[in-house]
Amino acid sequence: MGRIICCGLGPGDPELMSVKADRAVRAASHIAYFRKKGRPGQARRIVDGMLAHNVREFPMEYPVTTEIAFDSPDYARWLASFYDEWAARLAALARDTDVVVLCEGDPFFYGSFMHLYTRLQDHAEIEVIAGIPGMAGCWNALGRPIALGDDVMTVLMGTLPEAELEQRVRTSDALVIMKTGRNLEKVRRALAAAGRLGEAWLIERGTMPGERVARLSEVDAAECPYFAIVLVHGQGRRPELSE
Amino acid sequence: MGRIICCGLGPGDPELMSVKADRAVRAASHIAYFRKKGRPGQARRIVDGMLAHNVREFPMEYPVTTEIAFDSPDYARWLASFYDEWAARLAALARDTDVVVLCEGDPFFYGSFMHLYTRLQDHAEIEVIAGIPGMAGCWNALGRPIALGDDVMTVLMGTLPEAELEQRVRTSDALVIMKTGRNLEKVRRALAAAGRLGEAWLIERGTMPGERVARLSEVDAAECPYFAIVLVHGQGRRPELSE
Repeated sequence: MGRIICCGLGPGDPELMSVKADRAVRAASHIAYFRKKGRPGQARRIVDGMLAHNVREFPMEYPVTTEIAFDSPDYARWLASFYDEWAARLAALARDTDVVVLCEGDPFFYGSFMHLYTRLQDHAEIEVIAGIPGMAGCWNALGRPIALGDDVMTVLMGTLPEAELEQRVRTSDALVIMKTGRNLEKVRRALAAAGRLGEAWLIERGTMPGERVARLSEVDAAECPYFAIVLVHGQGRRPELSE
Repeated sequence: MGRIICCGLGPGDPELMSVKADRAVRAASHIAYFRKKGRPGQARRIVDGMLAHNVREFPMEYPVTTEIAFDSPDYARWLASFYDEWAARLAALARDTDVVVLCEGDPFFYGSFMHLYTRLQDHAEIEVIAGIPGMAGCWNALGRPIALGDDVMTVLMGTLPEAELEQRVRTSDALVIMKTGRNLEKVRRALAAAGRLGEAWLIERGTMPGERVARLSEVDAAECPYFAIVLVHGQGRRPELSE
């Protein structure tokens, strides 16, 4: 009787993987990971050079997004059956052996593994190993505290409506905006409307080879990958003195 | 010429330290860490059993908070000179050797090290090693994703005014509330007023020995330590379909 071990890999630098995750990856006989069809896959790339020579690999492949519109009901249905299928395959594998599922960042923080996790609940023993979230790799790349003191930090998706983005930018000290990609122009307009575009940074591939850090105001939006993260630093709000 | 290496230790379980941090701690000849006077210190406790036998230790001791009121101008002045003094001592040490500063969680995420970091900027070479934030250890202890899909997650301090807390609870999907301690009753009232007390959890010592997870509604506020974290899970807001 095996287990499914969901391994948080952290932001990308293999040295930032936890001691526990590092050990699980090196000891794995079976690994599974999400990737886009035809791509090596970011999670798989992080563990390059760490795997046993006879490891069995199970890439769980999303269709390239041009095949089905990313935000259509068809895509949602396709995804649901994709997760159903892989949950069943992983549960079957885990009857005989441990299976390590590779997850970028921290699995419990906006992780795709959660779609399998809910489906696997009553069908396999599951262990989740925490990782450094991708956003932490990004703010480390900038070498400044993202938040301190009594700052309020908001984590947002670039998919939100523009008016909501603007409102939340206005009312937060520190900001992390994920799912940028083709939402980048909207994110930029929302930041500009709230008077904070000048403080915003775009980080691609934080802690990884090819890391790129730029002021958001100077980035060509057409070049923004989906996984790039926008950060605005808090200034360290002072605690209110006691009543 | 040495460096100051600020080592993020993660949420508490030494196995969740990064490979890089683990190596730095084991190789350290000089370590420094914050603690309250007369206490062993949480950061120091995490690395128990990992240190070289001849390591030199520099505990940086805060006064116990009953000596000076925590939120008084006197305390703020005392803290500023405390950080000045330690920044100077660490910079002097780092002229000859590497000094590893032990930091719970991730140093760039509300970390006290930042008070030294700003003071040390032009006086020493500094390296910061990312860690898993304490909040991630807490949501891992609960075994459920803190946020997914298009959830908006807000990180808040319990020190904020009650009306602001309530407003932010109302307008966030997922919540992380830090600096609880004697603010816990206020936090609880704000959650109740926003109709979300029933979903809230209190986690103490996430991933550490003595970990305690409880429904916030069932906790005796008098027993709440300052570092305990309140979590409310997002439900996975669905992305809006494209315009």
